[in-house]
Amino acid sequence: MQHSYAIIGTGAVGGLYGARLQHAGHDVHFLAHSDYEHVRAHGLRVTSPWGHVTLPRVQAYARSSDMPICDVICVCLKTTQNHLLPALLAPLVRPGTVILLMQNGLGAEEEVAARFPQARVAGALCFLCCNKTGPGVIHHVDYGHILLGMHGAGPDDTLRRIAAEFTAAGIPNELKASLADARWRKLFWNIPFNGLSVILQAETDAIMADTSSRGLAHALLQEVLAGAHACGYAIEDAFMQHIMDFTDKMKPYRTSMALDYAAGRPLEIEYIYDRPLAAARQAGLAMPRVATLADELHFLDRRRRAAPATPGA
Amino acid sequence: MQHSYAIIGTGAVGGLYGARLQHAGHDVHFLAHSDYEHVRAHGLRVTSPWGHVTLPRVQAYARSSDMPICDVICVCLKTTQNHLLPALLAPLVRPGTVILLMQNGLGAEEEVAARFPQARVAGALCFLCCNKTGPGVIHHVDYGHILLGMHGAGPDDTLRRIAAEFTAAGIPNELKASLADARWRKLFWNIPFNGLSVILQAETDAIMADTSSRGLAHALLQEVLAGAHACGYAIEDAFMQHIMDFTDKMKPYRTSMALDYAAGRPLEIEYIYDRPLAAARQAGLAMPRVATLADELHFLDRRRRAAPATPGA
Repeated sequence: MQHSYAIIGTGAVGGLYGARLQHAGHDVHFLAHSDYEHVRAHGLRVTSPWGHVTLPRVQAYARSSDMPICDVICVCLKTTQNHLLPALLAPLVRPGTVILLMQNGLGAEEEVAARFPQARVAGALCFLCCNKTGPGVIHHVDYGHILLGMHGAGPDDTLRRIAAEFTAAGIPNELKASLADARWRKLFWNIPFNGLSVILQAETDAIMADTSSRGLAHALLQEVLAGAHACGYAIEDAFMQHIMDFTDKMKPYRTSMALDYAAGRPLEIEYIYDRPLAAARQAGLAMPRVATLADELHFLDRRRRAAPATPGA
Repeated sequence: MQHSYAIIGTGAVGGLYGARLQHAGHDVHFLAHSDYEHVRAHGLRVTSPWGHVTLPRVQAYARSSDMPICDVICVCLKTTQNHLLPALLAPLVRPGTVILLMQNGLGAEEEVAARFPQARVAGALCFLCCNKTGPGVIHHVDYGHILLGMHGAGPDDTLRRIAAEFTAAGIPNELKASLADARWRKLFWNIPFNGLSVILQAETDAIMADTSSRGLAHALLQEVLAGAHACGYAIEDAFMQHIMDFTDKMKPYRTSMALDYAAGRPLEIEYIYDRPLAAARQAGLAMPRVATLADELHFLDRRRRAAPATPGA
């Protein structure tokens, strides 16, 4: 018997992965927000290098309290919406329900596990270039693989089944023994490049091409490495060079945080910067360059949200 | 017998102080650049809370080699022009000539003293809000007092005479026993507020009003204090609070670096950031937040200068 899935947030992440799961035959239920009416009437359309998926009919909801109980709840909101999770998830969680947080940053699993002790909490790190380009329309540009892990434990049979179902749905994935280790590894990219892309208003290629910003990216990586070590994750020194090489090889890329900033949406500073800074601080380590970026981002974020967004910027 | 003065650079600083010296009866010679023709034909006009000064005739030059030998050479260029100093000063320096560097940042006196060992090298820190608003037109908004010191020594009789002449010309000033100590104290303001004003595109009041940018300014002050201490300058802890209080009380102010950036002019990163960073590093101290600002500024500066300036921006 296949798992049923609730997709909380039908944006780029929820739209891409949810559509593939439904396309593979799963019973999938989508919580939508701004484009609820459109998705309910016209479904979802995903263009993707994995093959386009058009779903003229999906089960869409405007309120989570209208959704049926599902085996797996995929949380596909930006972490800036996480204050909504207690109310959104309460009607859907039963003993043994899997809550899979498909989000960036650190610390969300702890919060959800504390709030819903009856649930099995897991996390997914999604490596993808994907945008929602219109109501019900997802444009998947590149990448897309997922790392899966249980919160505070190794993979269990349920997570292995989820991984197998993702694989069967054409979603490349990998089970990780330590979710926290994987989350720190993803911070290696997010902390330097999300922040600098907003502060310098630059794409990745420009950041990598200039001596000063390239040097700063590397200095930030050294702080994140020290932070991971202080928190007990044995990430190898060579991982910094891996991130530099990976970013050098990327096509010029505007990060999701830069897109959020341009659109006047709130930035994911809390889970990508503040939580790692707090975790390292608690382990006795300061990350002053990371803290500088976080302070600058908070200023820019608050000012941007206080001013009306520039349409189409 | 009063000193004669050569003013190297007739911008906001050189225009204001040079005009007051001439107004007080000194023989003053102005090296001008972009507005040379205008200044030669129409002189200088300074509006100032100290009293307006209109000089229909000034002795203006397009080349320093055309200037007469003066007792005191006031270098009033931005430090971004300091690579020009060896050639500009060579025709003017005689044994005993005073070279007074009226500039921000650290390290220029060392360079000039090494290049012109026959000169007496001094420095001046100018605390002023003043802009050149058109050819030959200087608008002095507020402040304007000067701290004077000899390079690598206490004040001598010549510098005392210069200070007295400045006072007689209505330029408030103070002789400092240690020029380097005074230069570090000025960095306390320049390092946080010049940099953040460019990176955050904000005036001082906005920087002081936001929790994150205010906290960052304070954290930068702590690094600058540690840097000064590492370099042997006994600046008191309370000086940080003095800077915060001073900035809280300022009228909303767009820093000179923010104005330079908006106008597409090069930024004074080398003498305000790179030299202090190098001095602290040599004394065994890292200033990671300051280094982060410096890297960001270098990126923004290079990109801005590579692109055509936005007129009037």
